[in-house]
Amino acid sequence: MAEARTIEIARLFHALGDPTRRAILDRLSDRPHSVSQLAAPLGITLTAVAQHLQILEECGLARTEKVGRVRTCQIASEGLDALEGWIRAHRTPWERRMDRLGELLGGGSS
Amino acid sequence: MAEARTIEIARLFHALGDPTRRAILDRLSDRPHSVSQLAAPLGITLTAVAQHLQILEECGLARTEKVGRVRTCQIASEGLDALEGWIRAHRTPWERRMDRLGELLGGGSS
Repeated sequence: MAEARTIEIARLFHALGDPTRRAILDRLSDRPHSVSQLAAPLGITLTAVAQHLQILEECGLARTEKVGRVRTCQIASEGLDALEGWIRAHRTPWERRMDRLGELLGGGSS
Repeated sequence: MAEARTIEIARLFHALGDPTRRAILDRLSDRPHSVSQLAAPLGITLTAVAQHLQILEECGLARTEKVGRVRTCQIASEGLDALEGWIRAHRTPWERRMDRLGELLGGGSS
């Protein structure tokens, strides 16, 4: 739960602007993948995947870990949390109140 | 509360990738502005503001309304809702459960 790093919002939106990086996140949100498991279905090289992953790691959207010879990637929450914070900050005061009300009523907006 | 339009996520991230458009949203999240109120502090032309606003409108992030001779812009929730849906869909199953727990405990993650 230690999340001290500040995520730059410009970097985050730059990372998410790329369709291949979003496709990588689509897969990672299901389950962790190795770099080669990501490369094959996307039809891109291991080097390209590694470059995209580096950008995703830099803004807290993915995390990779090398175990033996295999680098495993998973989705990270830091970037998603930063994005959610940005959304919250941009809702109108009225909407922020409605959000609170939704939470109090136990709903969430599914 | 009628929100039938489907917001394309690619369009949304494209819109949010631009720093001027994010600066416009920063201002609109405070309160509605006229087009000229937006143009002056950003140092851009009315035409440029209008073009950015069109892109923001197309993905449900802003709404404009013409009253008399003045076009007033405000933030719209559709785009923010779509973005939040995307975030939720990309959290890991474990995290989605933690989110639910947070809601049950009445917190939210402020």
